[in-house]
Amino acid sequence: MSDLTEPVDRADLVPPHDLGTGDFSLYPIDHAMVAAALEDRTVRVEWDDGHVSRFHFPWLRDNCPCCVHPYTQEQVFELAAAVHEIRPEDVLVSDVGALEVCWSGDGHASRYHPGWLREHCYSEGSRRERLLAPVLWDASTRARPDGFDWGAVVADEEVELAWLSSIRDTGCAVIHGAPLTDDAVGEIAGRIGVLRETNFGRLFDVRVDTDPVSNSNTGLELPPHTDLPTREYQPGLQLLHCLVNDVAGGLSLLVDGYRVAAELRDRSPRFYELLTTHPWDFANRSRTSDYRWRAPMIGVDSDGNWTGVRVGNWLRGPLDAPFDLVEELYEAYRAFEGLSHQARFQIRFRLEPGDCLIFDNRRLLHGRTSLGPGAGRRHLRGCYMDRDELRSRLNMLERRRRTRKVVAGQGP
Amino acid sequence: MSDLTEPVDRADLVPPHDLGTGDFSLYPIDHAMVAAALEDRTVRVEWDDGHVSRFHFPWLRDNCPCCVHPYTQEQVFELAAAVHEIRPEDVLVSDVGALEVCWSGDGHASRYHPGWLREHCYSEGSRRERLLAPVLWDASTRARPDGFDWGAVVADEEVELAWLSSIRDTGCAVIHGAPLTDDAVGEIAGRIGVLRETNFGRLFDVRVDTDPVSNSNTGLELPPHTDLPTREYQPGLQLLHCLVNDVAGGLSLLVDGYRVAAELRDRSPRFYELLTTHPWDFANRSRTSDYRWRAPMIGVDSDGNWTGVRVGNWLRGPLDAPFDLVEELYEAYRAFEGLSHQARFQIRFRLEPGDCLIFDNRRLLHGRTSLGPGAGRRHLRGCYMDRDELRSRLNMLERRRRTRKVVAGQGP
Repeated sequence: MSDLTEPVDRADLVPPHDLGTGDFSLYPIDHAMVAAALEDRTVRVEWDDGHVSRFHFPWLRDNCPCCVHPYTQEQVFELAAAVHEIRPEDVLVSDVGALEVCWSGDGHASRYHPGWLREHCYSEGSRRERLLAPVLWDASTRARPDGFDWGAVVADEEVELAWLSSIRDTGCAVIHGAPLTDDAVGEIAGRIGVLRETNFGRLFDVRVDTDPVSNSNTGLELPPHTDLPTREYQPGLQLLHCLVNDVAGGLSLLVDGYRVAAELRDRSPRFYELLTTHPWDFANRSRTSDYRWRAPMIGVDSDGNWTGVRVGNWLRGPLDAPFDLVEELYEAYRAFEGLSHQARFQIRFRLEPGDCLIFDNRRLLHGRTSLGPGAGRRHLRGCYMDRDELRSRLNMLERRRRTRKVVAGQGP
Repeated sequence: MSDLTEPVDRADLVPPHDLGTGDFSLYPIDHAMVAAALEDRTVRVEWDDGHVSRFHFPWLRDNCPCCVHPYTQEQVFELAAAVHEIRPEDVLVSDVGALEVCWSGDGHASRYHPGWLREHCYSEGSRRERLLAPVLWDASTRARPDGFDWGAVVADEEVELAWLSSIRDTGCAVIHGAPLTDDAVGEIAGRIGVLRETNFGRLFDVRVDTDPVSNSNTGLELPPHTDLPTREYQPGLQLLHCLVNDVAGGLSLLVDGYRVAAELRDRSPRFYELLTTHPWDFANRSRTSDYRWRAPMIGVDSDGNWTGVRVGNWLRGPLDAPFDLVEELYEAYRAFEGLSHQARFQIRFRLEPGDCLIFDNRRLLHGRTSLGPGAGRRHLRGCYMDRDELRSRLNMLERRRRTRKVVAGQGP
């Protein structure tokens, strides 16, 4: 992983940027506070663009930026252990534009950086602005994943940001010009974060040989599926790096599982409800391991966002469901699987040597067309990693972008 | 990982054990089928103990044990692609006691092994029998984790089964007599399955030195918490292997998070509801990475079972919640955190060199009492792995136990 160490000592910055924020980030100040007032249960803050924030007392006390360990920035104040009532004595906007809160119980004073405070405002409007929705696609809106040159990614943080943002938003991207070495896929993954080793190893090979005299794997079509739906923690990202491809067919195939889920929700609300709430059984048959998991085929989190899909006909185990739901669950499954097999949801493209496809294995289904007639070799090398490795790397790149903005604004 | 390869060729077994089951397991036959009848939408099977099973047509067709790849045992029949109506022409119990179904559309015949079929019956009673509930505990019902001798675990599969079952059911166990080497914790984990590498490495050290002249970590109490609640995939199992412990204090501390969750549910249903449905923000402050995640503190799956708890005061980020819920969420958090700090939920015990504590990091909170007065050293070496690695290993050991039972019943 390349080094993204925080480069700035806050003590050298012009106030209020010298204030701690309880983390390692700097925050540009796009708006100034013009007034602060103590209300019955909240502190009301008015900003120069007319926006109003209201922060509850326990939230402010919990996030006091000086009640952290000086080295780790981890909280040392334990709200659960607080003996005093959590209530300010007084609040004001300081000369340098920080919110100052003086607490009644222990007399502690907290100073909040205006950039940090605005960034964490939890008014309905601010929360809505921060939402990151996936960009759904199908064959009518996308022909292939966005492409990025490996040399440019390594040389330019803004290109790297665009590459990783594309994976986050569309679920996929292709690197061109990666080295044709056995370790390249691990190096690309390692730039993002930590690899996920599984029972298939740290790196794995997808090697198909159509030369009929060799004892090779088959060249049949692989229908769209997600890898390892059999695991409680289905791997989040899959990388497939093409080293050799001289077969006639063997196109890579991707389906946006969230797009298909949205289609099912619109066409068959009952089927959608069944697949988001009732677990299916997945099982990995093997002589040496026995991974099984039960989970809904379409995962939805407590915020109502999709968390992933689990699809793989040949990785299902015997369904263990309430008797009265079994037939309907099978109908729902057939409807969902049927949609994912429709060409209008599928994009097909050819990976050339040096290409590295990265995709969200919990959102996208992947597959392969048949290798076609004639001899030829196709060799991909792959690995897994988890999705929040990508989020962490993106957060770091965005942190550095903010740092550059704050430092540039410091003047001579 | 030690080898647990399936040792038996089914073709050598007495019928019906020569029948395929669509997996690599053998199934003891504890009950025989006495009758099979075709109903309107199901096949009704009567067993010699009076139990009645009813299997829907698509379920039976989907689980036909011969429609699998001969080597991988993975399904090759695609229910979603079936063109015929899924309906039997005829059903019967064969001479060797198998269920035979002849399908009307394509004339295919399926033969189901009676042991497999009974094991997968989804009647309400059979489903209830298969449920595995965690064994909740507190300081009044448990003094310390169950203990197991490492030599016995390695020598005897039944001891290994007892060890892993204890971790599954109580959330913890201690190995005694592990080698005092740097790699031992990795070897113990590797016997179960694949290790989980994180940004803290593959193995990590918890080393505290109270000698005041050294530049060591502090010896303060560590309140109960789970590790890495900041990750989308919070690690499932944590191993802590004690290499040195000659401090006066430094007792290990465990809390059954599910027991505390049950207490909260009984005492404050509203707080329990809030903590199971509304996400909290967790953030790992670091100069080189930036992992954050939002999830409810108490996780519940679509079956209504607990999936884990996320607790760590100093690993929380600024709460991003609907304005009207913020105060109540803080009250709920304080109630949950307050319970976990009560001595009646905590067990404390001393790890000696050669002990290796393994616990479910998503169920149990762990901590440490202060190291106490005087000089001394304490060195633990740890690693993470995911919970379904343990399940897979348990499944393999249970598979082998079933195999032994079937083979023993074959007679001379």
